[in-house]
Amino acid sequence: MQFWKVHGARNDFVLVDETEEEVVPESDKPDFARWACDRRSGVGADGVVFIRSDPPSVEMRIFNRDGSEAEFCGNAARCVVKYVTEVRGENVKILRTLSGAHRVEVQGGWIAVEVPEAEIKKVVELGYEVDAGVPHFVRLTERDPIHDFGGLTDEAKTIFSEYEPKGGVNVTYAAPSVDELRVRTFERGVGWTPACGSGVVAASLVYSEIFGPFEEVSVRTAGGCLRVSLSDGPLLIGRAEIVYKGELRGDWRENTDHQRRRHSLSRSPSGRPRLQECR
Amino acid sequence: MQFWKVHGARNDFVLVDETEEEVVPESDKPDFARWACDRRSGVGADGVVFIRSDPPSVEMRIFNRDGSEAEFCGNAARCVVKYVTEVRGENVKILRTLSGAHRVEVQGGWIAVEVPEAEIKKVVELGYEVDAGVPHFVRLTERDPIHDFGGLTDEAKTIFSEYEPKGGVNVTYAAPSVDELRVRTFERGVGWTPACGSGVVAASLVYSEIFGPFEEVSVRTAGGCLRVSLSDGPLLIGRAEIVYKGELRGDWRENTDHQRRRHSLSRSPSGRPRLQECR
Repeated sequence: MQFWKVHGARNDFVLVDETEEEVVPESDKPDFARWACDRRSGVGADGVVFIRSDPPSVEMRIFNRDGSEAEFCGNAARCVVKYVTEVRGENVKILRTLSGAHRVEVQGGWIAVEVPEAEIKKVVELGYEVDAGVPHFVRLTERDPIHDFGGLTDEAKTIFSEYEPKGGVNVTYAAPSVDELRVRTFERGVGWTPACGSGVVAASLVYSEIFGPFEEVSVRTAGGCLRVSLSDGPLLIGRAEIVYKGELRGDWRENTDHQRRRHSLSRSPSGRPRLQECR
Repeated sequence: MQFWKVHGARNDFVLVDETEEEVVPESDKPDFARWACDRRSGVGADGVVFIRSDPPSVEMRIFNRDGSEAEFCGNAARCVVKYVTEVRGENVKILRTLSGAHRVEVQGGWIAVEVPEAEIKKVVELGYEVDAGVPHFVRLTERDPIHDFGGLTDEAKTIFSEYEPKGGVNVTYAAPSVDELRVRTFERGVGWTPACGSGVVAASLVYSEIFGPFEEVSVRTAGGCLRVSLSDGPLLIGRAEIVYKGELRGDWRENTDHQRRRHSLSRSPSGRPRLQECR
């Protein structure tokens, strides 16, 4: 079984091309995602994307590390467009996902992806409630959220827990500096990540509202540089990298470590993990 | 450039076969290790092993994530023997490393590797100072070090710091249960790891000294089951897995993220990280 390892702003994915044929049966997709994302005994990634290319559009489905299916991811979208363009040599304009159709465009080494409209819903004491397709609490800070985010963790957890009754929130810190915005997000269910696409868009909107208006905002994240075009879309613009092509050896379902960990995560009657015999 | 992703008890490695020719120039090997081990923009691994097979022996060199070269690693050794046996179809009896020659043997699905002799140097109040090729402080515990190790971290750090003036020590916790020993190690410079080969050997020696003597000890780690034959070698016996074959796309040196992170880790005169322009 063939796959590709790709990343956008250090948000990394296993990409499986199912254009010619289904490679992982539908019912196996969640378990494959759990296995493939395991960084030590699988391939190692934040998620798995399955694609079907049908120029001028391409379909992308994305599964998280826990096997759940997500609607959309800006970083994954760029990787898919880069793959279809450079590996399949095809030209695509539309990316189809569970969250609908998104305009995409290759701009030299950069890839632009139309992302859900972002809107400031409420201004509160500590920051801004923003809907960017997913809920964000944008907090302006003078600290450097890229290198100095450790000290922000407790506050981020406090803000997160206040919104937990309403399904929780992604807490995005933004530090305006001379010619760019430095952003890092404490993501719901994940924690700090190198670069959260919707967080970058939410922070750019608030930045433009207070200091702008700006047509385009240049954002630095721990995963690299992104740009947000607010006047057109909005568009999330960034790079993507195709790191390598892989060929699995043997059937991933037979992978002993995956079986052992699935087996050991099942609970014995006493509630303790049931561990296989050390044979 | 071709590589293989392998793991032994969830201690994972990028394997580069240089039998036919040098694949990564000597001077690039440390930098390649730093790039390849990066779990998001590289391949992702604990280390990189370079091998040259010359039956009945095989040479293994191993580089850590930080680019430093290590002398030996039991988990990596099993992966190398599995690769030479199953992928190259060759029969090897001796593994050559910086720490010398090690007897190796394939036993069905298990692989036995001769590891450095282990010796209890001193018995102190909290545990046992053991030389297993590398220094270990073995501490017996009633807690389950596989699932319940969080609570042991502070103590492990305290013990580690007491030995820091003497170069530090790996702190290995061992919990004897009915028919097996449960072991986890707080490794020098790394922290908790799924399975440390020398830690498993050190703990087995102490276990045999107190409750034995035993010819062979069965050990459960967070990375799976290992066995230690004390009467013969000693031998560290365990499984290994070849997960996939990979083909890098383009030159890893040109990998923009690796360049960006190397560039951004260089310091400007003020001491702050020097960050590339967000172009």
